[in-house]
Amino acid sequence: MSDEQELGITESKQYNTGEWYAEVVQKAELANYGPEGMSGFIVTRPRAYALWERVQNFLDSKFKQTGVQNAYFPVFIPEQYLEREKDVVEGFDPEVAWVTHAGREELEERLAVRPTSESIIAPYMAQWIRSHRDLPLRVNQWTSVVRWEATETKPFFRTKEFLWQEGHTAHATHEDAWEETMTRLDQYASMYEDLLAMPVLRGAKPEHDKFPGADTTTTVEALMPDGKSVQAGTSHHLGTSFAEAFDITYTDEDEGSQVAHTTSWGLSWRALGALIMTHSDDQGLVLPPTVAPEQVVVVPIWQADTREKVLDYAESVVDELEADGVRVELDDRDERNPGFKFNEWELKGVPVRFEIGPNEVDDEVVTVVHRPDGESKEVAREDIAETVREEFDEVYAKLYAAAEENLEGNVREADSRADILGTIGQHGGYVKAPWCGDEDCEAEIKDQIAAEIVMVPLNDEAAEIHDGEECAVCGEDAAETAYFAKSY
Amino acid sequence: MSDEQELGITESKQYNTGEWYAEVVQKAELANYGPEGMSGFIVTRPRAYALWERVQNFLDSKFKQTGVQNAYFPVFIPEQYLEREKDVVEGFDPEVAWVTHAGREELEERLAVRPTSESIIAPYMAQWIRSHRDLPLRVNQWTSVVRWEATETKPFFRTKEFLWQEGHTAHATHEDAWEETMTRLDQYASMYEDLLAMPVLRGAKPEHDKFPGADTTTTVEALMPDGKSVQAGTSHHLGTSFAEAFDITYTDEDEGSQVAHTTSWGLSWRALGALIMTHSDDQGLVLPPTVAPEQVVVVPIWQADTREKVLDYAESVVDELEADGVRVELDDRDERNPGFKFNEWELKGVPVRFEIGPNEVDDEVVTVVHRPDGESKEVAREDIAETVREEFDEVYAKLYAAAEENLEGNVREADSRADILGTIGQHGGYVKAPWCGDEDCEAEIKDQIAAEIVMVPLNDEAAEIHDGEECAVCGEDAAETAYFAKSY
Repeated sequence: MSDEQELGITESKQYNTGEWYAEVVQKAELANYGPEGMSGFIVTRPRAYALWERVQNFLDSKFKQTGVQNAYFPVFIPEQYLEREKDVVEGFDPEVAWVTHAGREELEERLAVRPTSESIIAPYMAQWIRSHRDLPLRVNQWTSVVRWEATETKPFFRTKEFLWQEGHTAHATHEDAWEETMTRLDQYASMYEDLLAMPVLRGAKPEHDKFPGADTTTTVEALMPDGKSVQAGTSHHLGTSFAEAFDITYTDEDEGSQVAHTTSWGLSWRALGALIMTHSDDQGLVLPPTVAPEQVVVVPIWQADTREKVLDYAESVVDELEADGVRVELDDRDERNPGFKFNEWELKGVPVRFEIGPNEVDDEVVTVVHRPDGESKEVAREDIAETVREEFDEVYAKLYAAAEENLEGNVREADSRADILGTIGQHGGYVKAPWCGDEDCEAEIKDQIAAEIVMVPLNDEAAEIHDGEECAVCGEDAAETAYFAKSY
Repeated sequence: MSDEQELGITESKQYNTGEWYAEVVQKAELANYGPEGMSGFIVTRPRAYALWERVQNFLDSKFKQTGVQNAYFPVFIPEQYLEREKDVVEGFDPEVAWVTHAGREELEERLAVRPTSESIIAPYMAQWIRSHRDLPLRVNQWTSVVRWEATETKPFFRTKEFLWQEGHTAHATHEDAWEETMTRLDQYASMYEDLLAMPVLRGAKPEHDKFPGADTTTTVEALMPDGKSVQAGTSHHLGTSFAEAFDITYTDEDEGSQVAHTTSWGLSWRALGALIMTHSDDQGLVLPPTVAPEQVVVVPIWQADTREKVLDYAESVVDELEADGVRVELDDRDERNPGFKFNEWELKGVPVRFEIGPNEVDDEVVTVVHRPDGESKEVAREDIAETVREEFDEVYAKLYAAAEENLEGNVREADSRADILGTIGQHGGYVKAPWCGDEDCEAEIKDQIAAEIVMVPLNDEAAEIHDGEECAVCGEDAAETAYFAKSY
């Protein structure tokens, strides 16, 4: 196999989205599949982990600015703890990995590898909280969790182990807990919009699809180019259910005993899956400059007699960018020609390429090429560190605009069962329809085309229900507007 | 129980070190013990996790500056992978936690919860490395690992699960791998010396106490005030043993196939245990300003008629420090008196206290108190942000000097078995003695007073062996100088 074949993406994003995605993930060196005997697991390579670190830094900084402290709870949870909140164990039981032996001994009680940590964090919160002065209490941890899902693996989207953060908070009132729930949802939306160049919708999950035990599960949803929605982060108002199960109470200002109101919120490396899927193309990975491991690659183009002057000039550009904090790579490999290098860095998703040959040196310019669309221009060598940031902003804006166009063009309305089925079948995307609130009406759609209600919008005037509106499926009185879509 | 009793440390560091340590960890809100059914596990509370984050940031930045990339490998390792490197499985088998079931199914092959990740990382390195151009390859991960040790739990020092980083690298030559081994050991030493105010010794573990499969295990050792040594970080030159077991080979410049040379290196939250043990005292936790969650606590001291002016002045000081990036806390609680606040912040290890009463306001000064020794002085309100950094440096220097004095005063020499036993029995600390290299000679000491050879020094001229020197235990020819000590 030649290097060119090894490098190139052979599948089509439009026609074979699944195969194309798997190929981009592997060839852009983002992840490998897990070892034999561990299907469903992946190995996260440095180029993907660097993306995750940028997601972490963005969120961690926002969390800390808004009163969250990091902590670390054990990787295992005793079975009896999981059972104390029955809704939870019913929710996760079929997906739990169990440790039964340690060394050569069998354990007296088997231990769950955490699928989520409410049931081990809540009892400690109960110990730490005594008075209203201890509230709000907010802890977060960055860990991996294990959920033994039987479905096919899709790196970052669906794996048996995944990296995430889980935040857990306790508050004096229902309203405080609701404010917390929305603060975290807004921070998730901001991460997508301001870091990953992806617009998202905010909504609530329908009653029957909430986190086990939650009052309300809120979600940010991102629309992929293939018309499927991704649940891209969830924030749960848990009401008093966990507090009651685990005795999280506090003494109020009048010395009375009160039950606390809790929340939990999590965002996983599924964000990376959505990022890759949204922007990338048939040449490979496309990344916004905000998160790209290398923001600029400089490719010098020389003949034997111009090598020295081109390389000197390229190095001076690289030095200036590096000194200014730009993540820049000089590709001065002798054994590769410029075309090969262009392809390789396009595959790896470097958002801006500088081409520097003898002409650029003579004219004191740099040729700048944008990864997403190949737009090319000459810019002055002078002030290059300032100019390059304008290029980054332009690239970011292009990526965001394309994703926004996809989202805005793919929210459609329907007022009958046939209309929902037909519209999703033909276009994908979201279909807004009045809904009675009954799970059976969702089931009718699900059974036919595997689309479900991904959310009920929050604060969307256009989605308000008016007197006399009827459920698009059953014709009974409508209670809310549901967004139907196929989803990852 | 009154608040005062709840706050105060009741045990003595000097006379009941173990109980005192456990009390400091709990009362300074660093950690709680794990839940029922999970003895040996701890919950790491935010005040301790913040210390770990500072250790992480320090090391992660050094790693990245020296060519290391972070990655993430699965939490589980198939049993057959562990078995491929027999030395490793022999080393860890009695301590491995095994996942045998997932959901309601029994697994075909049981999975180890990682005790360390060489055996899952090496096969991927083998895939990623093709040519000498792919070397060196350096990956690191920040994770937890599980080792089911039967001994008593000591938070951070000895727990069944612990947080750490593990770095894994591959190199073209033995020499390159040795250079890598020493680079990481030096970075560990720097972390202790420049961040945690702790001098350390560098050495190699004796042959029989190396990491399973390693050519050489190097270590940094820290001496605790009770005379015991802590193995505070290890860096292993693995030679070609893992590369041979997992086929990590590369094509050299002449197209020949070569076996790579690998290293691994790890530092755990035991660093926090050593930090707490080294500097703290009978009033509670003592921390250097480099890592303290709050570097300064401002305690205003007022009567009813001076409350407003004192508080205004205190707030202006806090604002100025915060704007300058100092981590500062204003303790303006009405329900607590200054004495209570002093005790509470001493317990929690805040290194610098500002006392501000009406006199300080009138004189335009601040009274500064150093946590480690109670040294108190008035400093001008003007330039407070600059002055406070000098105070931090002074506090750091005091802590370092005390730890250095403990170390330097507790390395003694011995030239006979009786001398080794007597000296360690009487003083603790390190005893340097010529040694033949035979494990049996260490066993004789170990059996009698539970002291062992914690290291053979690297680059220590005073420890060189000269012709005719004899092993202090058996009298045969000495091969090296061993450091005997009791250890954590």
